[in-house]
Amino acid sequence: MVTDIEIAQQAKLQPITAVASKLGIREEELEPYGRYKAKLDQSLFDRLQDRPNGKLVLVTAINPTPAGEGKTTTSIGLGEAMGRIGKKAVIALREPSLGPVFGIKGGAAGGGYAQVVPMEDINLHFTGDMHAITAANNLLCAMLDNHIHQGNALHIDTRRILITRCMDMNDRALRSVVVGLGGKPNGFVREDGFCITVASEVMAIFCLASDMHDLKERLGRILVAYSVEGKPIYASDLHAQGAMAALLKDAINPNLVQTLENTPAIMHGGPFANIAHGCNSVRATQIALKLGDYCITEAGFGSDLGAEKFLDIKCRLTGLHPSAIVLVATDRALKYNGGVSKTDTAAPNMEALKKGIVNLGAHIDNMNQYGVPVVVAINRFNNDPEEELQYIGKYCHERGADFALSEVFAKGGEGGIAVAEKVVKACEQPNHFHFLYEGDSPLEDKISRIASEIYGAKDVVYTKKAKKALKEIKTLGGDKLPVCIAKTQYSLSDDPSLLGRPHDFTLHIRDLKLSNGAGFVVAYAGNIMVMPGLPKSPAAERIDVTDDGRIIGLF
Amino acid sequence: MVTDIEIAQQAKLQPITAVASKLGIREEELEPYGRYKAKLDQSLFDRLQDRPNGKLVLVTAINPTPAGEGKTTTSIGLGEAMGRIGKKAVIALREPSLGPVFGIKGGAAGGGYAQVVPMEDINLHFTGDMHAITAANNLLCAMLDNHIHQGNALHIDTRRILITRCMDMNDRALRSVVVGLGGKPNGFVREDGFCITVASEVMAIFCLASDMHDLKERLGRILVAYSVEGKPIYASDLHAQGAMAALLKDAINPNLVQTLENTPAIMHGGPFANIAHGCNSVRATQIALKLGDYCITEAGFGSDLGAEKFLDIKCRLTGLHPSAIVLVATDRALKYNGGVSKTDTAAPNMEALKKGIVNLGAHIDNMNQYGVPVVVAINRFNNDPEEELQYIGKYCHERGADFALSEVFAKGGEGGIAVAEKVVKACEQPNHFHFLYEGDSPLEDKISRIASEIYGAKDVVYTKKAKKALKEIKTLGGDKLPVCIAKTQYSLSDDPSLLGRPHDFTLHIRDLKLSNGAGFVVAYAGNIMVMPGLPKSPAAERIDVTDDGRIIGLF
Repeated sequence: MVTDIEIAQQAKLQPITAVASKLGIREEELEPYGRYKAKLDQSLFDRLQDRPNGKLVLVTAINPTPAGEGKTTTSIGLGEAMGRIGKKAVIALREPSLGPVFGIKGGAAGGGYAQVVPMEDINLHFTGDMHAITAANNLLCAMLDNHIHQGNALHIDTRRILITRCMDMNDRALRSVVVGLGGKPNGFVREDGFCITVASEVMAIFCLASDMHDLKERLGRILVAYSVEGKPIYASDLHAQGAMAALLKDAINPNLVQTLENTPAIMHGGPFANIAHGCNSVRATQIALKLGDYCITEAGFGSDLGAEKFLDIKCRLTGLHPSAIVLVATDRALKYNGGVSKTDTAAPNMEALKKGIVNLGAHIDNMNQYGVPVVVAINRFNNDPEEELQYIGKYCHERGADFALSEVFAKGGEGGIAVAEKVVKACEQPNHFHFLYEGDSPLEDKISRIASEIYGAKDVVYTKKAKKALKEIKTLGGDKLPVCIAKTQYSLSDDPSLLGRPHDFTLHIRDLKLSNGAGFVVAYAGNIMVMPGLPKSPAAERIDVTDDGRIIGLF
Repeated sequence: MVTDIEIAQQAKLQPITAVASKLGIREEELEPYGRYKAKLDQSLFDRLQDRPNGKLVLVTAINPTPAGEGKTTTSIGLGEAMGRIGKKAVIALREPSLGPVFGIKGGAAGGGYAQVVPMEDINLHFTGDMHAITAANNLLCAMLDNHIHQGNALHIDTRRILITRCMDMNDRALRSVVVGLGGKPNGFVREDGFCITVASEVMAIFCLASDMHDLKERLGRILVAYSVEGKPIYASDLHAQGAMAALLKDAINPNLVQTLENTPAIMHGGPFANIAHGCNSVRATQIALKLGDYCITEAGFGSDLGAEKFLDIKCRLTGLHPSAIVLVATDRALKYNGGVSKTDTAAPNMEALKKGIVNLGAHIDNMNQYGVPVVVAINRFNNDPEEELQYIGKYCHERGADFALSEVFAKGGEGGIAVAEKVVKACEQPNHFHFLYEGDSPLEDKISRIASEIYGAKDVVYTKKAKKALKEIKTLGGDKLPVCIAKTQYSLSDDPSLLGRPHDFTLHIRDLKLSNGAGFVVAYAGNIMVMPGLPKSPAAERIDVTDDGRIIGLF
């Protein structure tokens, strides 16, 4: 069997200037990074400002299972398939983080014959955006500790510092640390931690900022700490936002790459879909909509997390909304939801499918609520029983969703034509998009609405800590902000073991945090790990580079 | 007065493809990073392999003083001046670190009318080399802690871990930390620290590696820890070198930029000149020598640190040696060495000059020892008294060094013609280059030789700790390696307050460390700070970016 990297390395790439030229991008609007990557300059945004938008297609999925769904692969293959049926599509995706690359996952740029390339570059440093975000976040932290060390004019309470350092690495040893040891020259001793870069508020801000001005404003609004008097301290109080923005000057320009079939793909930003909103940058989506007749984009995890936030946070902020939603699932993942173990999902099992398909049902219902036409794309495996696939199709139609099989992993764009045709059709259907909740309703009401309408919870309870945090956040003006619920991706509930479509459960809000620069309130329904660890046998042990510079062992 | 960044932003840059083309570099041998930066591909090295080398010119200086010497500025201006007198020169320099940019120093790409550009990009992320080095080092650390957490098959002794994490930031709070807090899921609690990236062994290795094969071998040889049984544990025991090298795949290709006058400059790597060898990468120097008739390069700090290591470590490794050495000083710095305070150095003071010039004398003598012709370049300030300059010139001639005034800060290449002419002449003189010590002499002998011949010490004493370390390093085969003495840059001695030319002092070796991947033994003559802190009013507070993306406040 050929591996993803082998397929990617055999691809016939076009020079990125040629890919850009097909989109009508002018030479001076493109900053090449090598031959196959480029950044799109602000001047392109300025020139296309008044061009009408293409149609936005959001790709989401059922709750992730160990059986795998293939959401990114489907997004890429769908973009390619659009080209095959004569439509001009631009794909907009998140860019990968180094942490998972060296951990379990290997690469994160699609799979099989539906990949974005150059796969190795994209999975390693790409154009340096992650490093720029890491540096901006860590500069803020260094300036904070330096302020305290140099006399602490702002009276920062070292017990109430809200930001942490970050690193683009899976490194459990850095989750909880003590810094400033070694006496006076090294500053004050205090507890700190590192999150992985994609979990930092700077990443969320980066992905929501519309331009340099907006970016700087948002960076300045980050709530970094409280003073001993209980006064909020913002990044702007440390005069940090200018230098942070300087570090992000190039990074905020979206990255243009291509698929194996030379379809343009814009990869830019990649925040967590639990503690943040989980989709590529606003700037990437906006420019993809100007450049293509269709923009195919995706949101992280299942529709309960990524899509809900895409619709209620990102669409609210930008005024955009999707013309169609693609919901990705696999027969195997539905059987897994029906209770069979991962290794048994390949075997025919109509009973398990019937039991597990309620998870798909919930996600269809969720997306229907937003008033946008839904197409279910079943990422087909070779030996999926025909009868089971037919059952899924019938089930979708009964719930008001269209349905198609996708074979893009094995066949590239050719394998996505069925989905593409349904998507084009869905985009022509009436669209009654609306948000799930009103922006100015109280935070508790927003949380309750997501909990009952999307998760299916019977009620929401708050810990004492959460109630206190809620009060504090309201004092700081956070009541008018959208809500970003951080919960497990594996279940519609806050209990990862509850598969299918859980009922009669309570959502537990343990804490809340104001992501003031990003402009949302994070409600924690569970312990969210913001710094992953490496597994016993990390992918890093097998990744290598030959003497002539070819990367091997990336999957 | 116009600032450096204002001058840089007014420069008329040539497209980097044009700069490359003038050097005969083919399009496929160049990886552009934007319009004004590019990486030089391995294929260029392969093609030029048998081309004869140009002449190597090493720029060094007296001991640094607060009055400033302008070594990088002189190197850049000299490169430009070579062009003005009809010589094809390529400049090879270290690339800046973000830490000092946000700290006191501001930019580090020359000054006035002798700068490399695009100055903002070079001073911020450039082509991402620093971030790649940071990531490679931190991946090794994450794999080490993960190995311990996952069962510790190698029996790594957590009390004897020799590597630390790193960050490209001035952040004193990270100098000494405790990691792994928070219980079992977060690994074992242990002491750790962060150095600034340029102080990591990975940086030193990066700068000494001749190609990808050599890089990987060196990374695998890093001594990371000892086992509880006292056995050395290397990076290769953790299977880390392949993934580390993958992270450095693009970074090892040198970066091509240009000066304000469009002279080609290769900036690549930048290790500390105390705990490491303090000069740009071997690959950068080698390719500059193939591309130009003259390669102008520099080494960090004064000749006692950077130049000594350039000659005894880098030249030994590569078989290269300089055809001439340029020794940079200022009238003001020499008066500072004569005991006047920084603010008084501008005033005429022949007595102070006569007293302080012995520092220059020592550096001339040092460089003469290597058998290479020396040219003293006095970086002239507007109101330097003519009589003092004449005195310096006479002093140099008496000591066997040539002499010229440099005015490149104010005048660019035009201001460097006098130096350039002397350098061309020096390169034609007989060259009797030899190393200061034999490679296979015992470590103590190498240290003694540097101490007496270069520093002027009367003897060397070792602490008990140093003696123990010396024994251990010999057991590990380190006795055959060159020595890298880590001491203060401010004095020829190990006491920063001893200016001029100290006599009758003892050099104190407090500890030794085997940089096994880099291939040298570090001897610590003093406490070397490997993680700087930010000053009370860091440059970061004034660095900003306008809404249209122009960086301001970088100096």
